[in-house]
Amino acid sequence: MSLLVVGTVAFDDIETPFGRAEKVVGGAATYIALAASYYTRDIKIVSVVGDDFPQADLDDLRARGVDLAGLQVKQGEKSFFWAGKYHQNMNDRDTLDTQLNVLANFDPILPPAYQEVDYLMLGNLTPAVQLQVLDQLKTRPKLIALDTMNFWMNVAMDELKTVLRRIDVLTINDEEARQLSGEHSLVKAAAVIHAMGPRFLIIKKGEHGALLFADDQVFFAPALPLAEVFDPTGAGDTFAGGFMGYLASTHDLSFDNFKRAVIYGSAMASFCVEKFSTERLRELNDDLIMERMLRFVQLVNFDAKLQA
Amino acid sequence: MSLLVVGTVAFDDIETPFGRAEKVVGGAATYIALAASYYTRDIKIVSVVGDDFPQADLDDLRARGVDLAGLQVKQGEKSFFWAGKYHQNMNDRDTLDTQLNVLANFDPILPPAYQEVDYLMLGNLTPAVQLQVLDQLKTRPKLIALDTMNFWMNVAMDELKTVLRRIDVLTINDEEARQLSGEHSLVKAAAVIHAMGPRFLIIKKGEHGALLFADDQVFFAPALPLAEVFDPTGAGDTFAGGFMGYLASTHDLSFDNFKRAVIYGSAMASFCVEKFSTERLRELNDDLIMERMLRFVQLVNFDAKLQA
Repeated sequence: MSLLVVGTVAFDDIETPFGRAEKVVGGAATYIALAASYYTRDIKIVSVVGDDFPQADLDDLRARGVDLAGLQVKQGEKSFFWAGKYHQNMNDRDTLDTQLNVLANFDPILPPAYQEVDYLMLGNLTPAVQLQVLDQLKTRPKLIALDTMNFWMNVAMDELKTVLRRIDVLTINDEEARQLSGEHSLVKAAAVIHAMGPRFLIIKKGEHGALLFADDQVFFAPALPLAEVFDPTGAGDTFAGGFMGYLASTHDLSFDNFKRAVIYGSAMASFCVEKFSTERLRELNDDLIMERMLRFVQLVNFDAKLQA
Repeated sequence: MSLLVVGTVAFDDIETPFGRAEKVVGGAATYIALAASYYTRDIKIVSVVGDDFPQADLDDLRARGVDLAGLQVKQGEKSFFWAGKYHQNMNDRDTLDTQLNVLANFDPILPPAYQEVDYLMLGNLTPAVQLQVLDQLKTRPKLIALDTMNFWMNVAMDELKTVLRRIDVLTINDEEARQLSGEHSLVKAAAVIHAMGPRFLIIKKGEHGALLFADDQVFFAPALPLAEVFDPTGAGDTFAGGFMGYLASTHDLSFDNFKRAVIYGSAMASFCVEKFSTERLRELNDDLIMERMLRFVQLVNFDAKLQA
């Protein structure tokens, strides 16, 4: 089934306690598409870059089955750029620089073949752009997921709430869930956010895993305990890519399959953080992913031996 | 199988965003014994109280099968007292008052029947007292678990390290694991702590669950997402009580049974926080516990559908 990915394709400068990487390829759509490409070959990207973006990286995406017809290349302009530095705990980071560049006037245009997709992942962008994408769809996708962040809650809450009414799955972190709902308890926050529109809420807690809320059901996926988290950049997007890629490939929207999709997302995220930038995501294969999934099974599986 | 519990029996003043409770019954040994009493009736307590401790509460413990022959009652003295106030997030708290009282000169004395027990839970106390208990044992218990805290790492690290060489299971929180090991990564911390003595390490992460490390295996138990955490006091001790009570009742030290024990501990802790003090722990029954265990199964269980 086809998966449309909307989000940034960009450059990052990254500094972690383990080292520095300068002007490496990043961006939400990049991470999402790379992660999803291990599950489905029918991926389309809507994004924008400048003429400074390396052709080799675009070719690599194409070779993975990613359709770039919706990727605008702006001549004479520069790609979106973000620079950040992670603290020792790897959960906190400081943004050192943000240069919107081509993103400042991003007008997402869906080619005709993009207007009837089965699955849609709206990466973190201004809610107005996310709305523009929704407005260009001829048929409603079977599942629409959206990622956002505290920044948009601060500066564009009304538009964000308008988008939320039109989506199925919201992925945010725990602090964002609290800000959006006004509730400290994540269980209460989930109820408030359900009422805003999304049937499914995924709360990402970084090294503490992720919670999936759906109606009256809740599922918890841990993060894999790792000896070293090398670079957390893109882990949330990679999670979303694995999650949506798996759903698009299996085309089963039962809660049981959502659970599996959350674990596949967590598995992909556990790879992402092992190397700088998108490096680790480019060298995976089915065997490595199955092995990683097995580690998740062992990590949480137990036989309760309950008497009926 | 018999379970010996060593720890405080005390009074607490507790303030949470939900209210205040004054001079309520608390103490590590109280919470541990109450939680364990749902699994085994053969529990012995070593502790000390003043003559101000309510007879009714001691009678209640006895009625649950708890042997108090090792509980010293000091005439003319007052019981250990702790006062604390929880922040809005319920994970952080300020200690407002600590009165050692009878605990200042606590000399733990094991009656003869206590010197050959099957399971031993050393609650959080000065390492010197924990050592005194170990020295009075005639035979080594099948499993010795120990709880401690950052305070003892600050003021009595050498004695703590001496005790660690003689125990099997250490339960501490994530920050304490980092302090004890000098490693930020919990995976690396576990390796360092294993080398200090304990074969098993349980890292308690409060609302983020618990990790069980054993040799090269790791298991994760989530905390149950709750709409309201009313009072977190004693949750860690309750966890330990459920864990050790379940092991003592099943008498199976396989890793699979450790996993179940960790989930039983988490289930008991999820009850503990629902009301002030030990209130909720006094009103449970097998049906409520089975129901809660089922919620943990649903919370983490997934069918990976992996091809072999």
